[in-house]
Amino acid sequence: MSNQQSQQSPFQQRLYDIIFGYQSKAGKRFDLLLVIAIIASVSVVILDSVSEFEQLYHTWFIAMEVVFTLFFTLEYIARLYCSPQPKEYAKSFYGVVDLLAILPTYLALLYPAAQVMLLFRLLRILRILRVLKLVRYMSEANVLLRALMLARRKILVFLFCICLMTTIYGALMYAIEGPANGFTSIPKSIYWAIVTITTVGYGDISPATPLGQALAALVMVTGFAIITVPTGIVGAELVNEMRREQSEHRCLHCERAGHDHDADYCKHCGASLLEES
Amino acid sequence: MSNQQSQQSPFQQRLYDIIFGYQSKAGKRFDLLLVIAIIASVSVVILDSVSEFEQLYHTWFIAMEVVFTLFFTLEYIARLYCSPQPKEYAKSFYGVVDLLAILPTYLALLYPAAQVMLLFRLLRILRILRVLKLVRYMSEANVLLRALMLARRKILVFLFCICLMTTIYGALMYAIEGPANGFTSIPKSIYWAIVTITTVGYGDISPATPLGQALAALVMVTGFAIITVPTGIVGAELVNEMRREQSEHRCLHCERAGHDHDADYCKHCGASLLEES
Amino acid sequence: MSNQQSQQSPFQQRLYDIIFGYQSKAGKRFDLLLVIAIIASVSVVILDSVSEFEQLYHTWFIAMEVVFTLFFTLEYIARLYCSPQPKEYAKSFYGVVDLLAILPTYLALLYPAAQVMLLFRLLRILRILRVLKLVRYMSEANVLLRALMLARRKILVFLFCICLMTTIYGALMYAIEGPANGFTSIPKSIYWAIVTITTVGYGDISPATPLGQALAALVMVTGFAIITVPTGIVGAELVNEMRREQSEHRCLHCERAGHDHDADYCKHCGASLLEES
Amino acid sequence: MSNQQSQQSPFQQRLYDIIFGYQSKAGKRFDLLLVIAIIASVSVVILDSVSEFEQLYHTWFIAMEVVFTLFFTLEYIARLYCSPQPKEYAKSFYGVVDLLAILPTYLALLYPAAQVMLLFRLLRILRILRVLKLVRYMSEANVLLRALMLARRKILVFLFCICLMTTIYGALMYAIEGPANGFTSIPKSIYWAIVTITTVGYGDISPATPLGQALAALVMVTGFAIITVPTGIVGAELVNEMRREQSEHRCLHCERAGHDHDADYCKHCGASLLEES
Repeated sequence: MSNQQSQQSPFQQRLYDIIFGYQSKAGKRFDLLLVIAIIASVSVVILDSVSEFEQLYHTWFIAMEVVFTLFFTLEYIARLYCSPQPKEYAKSFYGVVDLLAILPTYLALLYPAAQVMLLFRLLRILRILRVLKLVRYMSEANVLLRALMLARRKILVFLFCICLMTTIYGALMYAIEGPANGFTSIPKSIYWAIVTITTVGYGDISPATPLGQALAALVMVTGFAIITVPTGIVGAELVNEMRREQSEHRCLHCERAGHDHDADYCKHCGASLLEES
Repeated sequence: MSNQQSQQSPFQQRLYDIIFGYQSKAGKRFDLLLVIAIIASVSVVILDSVSEFEQLYHTWFIAMEVVFTLFFTLEYIARLYCSPQPKEYAKSFYGVVDLLAILPTYLALLYPAAQVMLLFRLLRILRILRVLKLVRYMSEANVLLRALMLARRKILVFLFCICLMTTIYGALMYAIEGPANGFTSIPKSIYWAIVTITTVGYGDISPATPLGQALAALVMVTGFAIITVPTGIVGAELVNEMRREQSEHRCLHCERAGHDHDADYCKHCGASLLEES
Repeated sequence: MSNQQSQQSPFQQRLYDIIFGYQSKAGKRFDLLLVIAIIASVSVVILDSVSEFEQLYHTWFIAMEVVFTLFFTLEYIARLYCSPQPKEYAKSFYGVVDLLAILPTYLALLYPAAQVMLLFRLLRILRILRVLKLVRYMSEANVLLRALMLARRKILVFLFCICLMTTIYGALMYAIEGPANGFTSIPKSIYWAIVTITTVGYGDISPATPLGQALAALVMVTGFAIITVPTGIVGAELVNEMRREQSEHRCLHCERAGHDHDADYCKHCGASLLEES
Repeated sequence: MSNQQSQQSPFQQRLYDIIFGYQSKAGKRFDLLLVIAIIASVSVVILDSVSEFEQLYHTWFIAMEVVFTLFFTLEYIARLYCSPQPKEYAKSFYGVVDLLAILPTYLALLYPAAQVMLLFRLLRILRILRVLKLVRYMSEANVLLRALMLARRKILVFLFCICLMTTIYGALMYAIEGPANGFTSIPKSIYWAIVTITTVGYGDISPATPLGQALAALVMVTGFAIITVPTGIVGAELVNEMRREQSEHRCLHCERAGHDHDADYCKHCGASLLEES
């Protein structure tokens, strides 16, 4: 935020702090307003897809959509205006998402045939990720993310094994059950294997021959056994990560660490821990 | 319990200890009787909903219902009588639940048309929560609750991610599969996404197009991967909580427990823990 | 085993060690033979229930059944003969199971109408539990059982909450969906709630109204969240239990504990750990 | 690799290092090329099973298949040529898999009737396991494998209990529900019990009688409770294994790692660990 170029007017800088920043009071309020507008706007798109609501309230939905689009358009112009590098912003991931959030409505107004484009308005929900950056400041989410990052290589090895297994199981079931029992192709059989190994089990395709059912039972027990692996991985990383977080809670007086979240006094020397944070 | 106003007669105080208290022998017996009456009364409502039983034993069910309602009415009057602040009790959550447990039967007797109100009798099961307060004294439930409380912020972050993901996946499936394959609206598609990501998988709605099945496979593997996160969170908190519970380290000064094995000073009040053990 | 009464002949004592004991070489062989006979006998009952096999091999199945029944009859007589307290044995749980394993075949031979009794032969599988006693000597199973025993009160509290939740959810769905959508009675709705909360999700009953689907989504996310609790409980107990097991691995030389399963030398003093066990 | 017999020419040794080795740069490149060829070749087989693709691109698929088969044939000949013990290689597991990867295509060319043999080409995916040996050098996969190996006896005890339970539950459901409700034989009922206890829940067979549904609810809650056991086992082993892995404590004498943080002596050879750090 201190990288803003000096040619910006004080008004631009103030606007920048409100719209892009999230540490000032006004910035927090703007973020909250934005989240409410995004959720309301996405809710309108979602409710408009229900034919009952669409028949009754379609005019209201259009009116609200116009209001949201105007608000997001103003916001987009304000972002371009106050950004120190407007071109960079317009090309960035969030810039493109911000533009995609308003374009479909204008296109649908100009070309009424482009109704299908209206679904792109749902991309607005991606804008909520911008506010998720805030989450980075919550130590809770931090612990989760770090545990997932530390476990990512183990999870990749695990996902690779799942791919290998579902391919072999899927091909075997295609050979055993065949198109007559719904296993019409190997990709569809792999889809069945994934549905089964993740214990989802729709039942849209299910084995009908005794041999197929025996193999399916094997797939299920395998899935049951391997569901333990990623759980164990993330759980173990979390135990480590939480221990580490504890060890970063350091007493200013005796400089020893390892205090609990809710500790007010150092457990080693009895000094208060409150002034430190 | 020591807050009872002094204008109460000894009989009222004795009754209060039996009905509201749960530490005296009579109080424990009354709680047990209450739990049995609640379970029996709820069982009658449940069995009465089965048409076979209803045709055979409807008269018996009505007779038992009258007995339970009289018992709960007497109990409600006794609670009002012995409570030091009857109005406060009547307005409290449990007071309203206690009233709702008896009202439906009287209303159905007065207006035979109000049959549908009889289902409200099931709210009686909420009365069992009153006895669950006892559970607070069981250290086992304590550990569970504290682990859940400590993990609550992590679980909220996690549930927020689930909401975001199911919305995006649901909208994508609505666009890919469309009403022809059962995905008649975005809310219904979000319902499908929740059914899939939680690995429930009814199969009432399931993808029929290859692209939809490929996306569904992705949703399932995602669900499989993220099921690990809350498990890891609660598991890790439980490991910590049980380690702390085992230590039974209680501060002599502020009488709060939950200190680490190597703690020398109370983390809540800073008093020394060393002279106690 | 040392409680055998002295009036037993040496042959009886030898037979007792083979049939009831499981530490001598002959005893281990007899246990293995028994397990094979039980599994083979149960397999015959299972395969006989498949109409295809039953039509082809019914005569063979009857012949094998006669052999197994004779073997189990001889074994039962031998157990009665060599047991120091035959009456106590005949009345014990295993004695009754051993009798039930042979009775159905004789009854079916005497009264050909008592075909349905043949299913009782499957109770033979309970006899395998007798050999499971061996498992108590495997430290692996010990750790599992102790972790489950330590966690039993937490699991009971947890199961109680599940019961409460499924009753409330089931009654709500009965009120919302009603008999028209398959929720014909409250017990059936509770069955649906259990199918959903455990993420089994048959799809034989599934919500059809939007409100019902919204409630179902809530039930699923709840189920997803609470599945973490028992996993966390048992996992945390296992971590503790395995740490305790480690701490019982004590060096004879320096008397300090905490060695790994596969440790050959003391990590504190370097003395060999092998002579101790 | 140092066991190669000296009668090999330098070219053979160079080829051996490329084809069988995976530590030289050329060996790594060859492994990568092999993995790509295997995945592409398997993809062709999979896509050829989809009737839509098969009708459009069948000629292309045949052309690509010829190329892959020629490549794998050349590779097989090269392996035979450069291997120090060609006969041993041809008889080994990987040698047979390598031969099975090319045989089906030649047989299908010679005898057009042997179309069904073409599915054996999918065995090529097993060849990817050869490259998985590389994984052994990734410490991440190492931790997973060691945790699974350490937990294998606990998992076997657990799987044995699952088998016992599904047999008893399956037979009970066969007796309660019977062939009229889809439980046509005991093996099919055991299949149902496995589908239910692993929480897959296809719904192809589901209980229809109240008693059957009550038993099914019991099976599900049991399954819900025991799903915790393997998760806890692997999770607990992973916590231990990762703690040990982190320590990176390697003995200077026997060069084996996996020591505890507080270890002073190697647990494998008893040598002191103190001078190394």
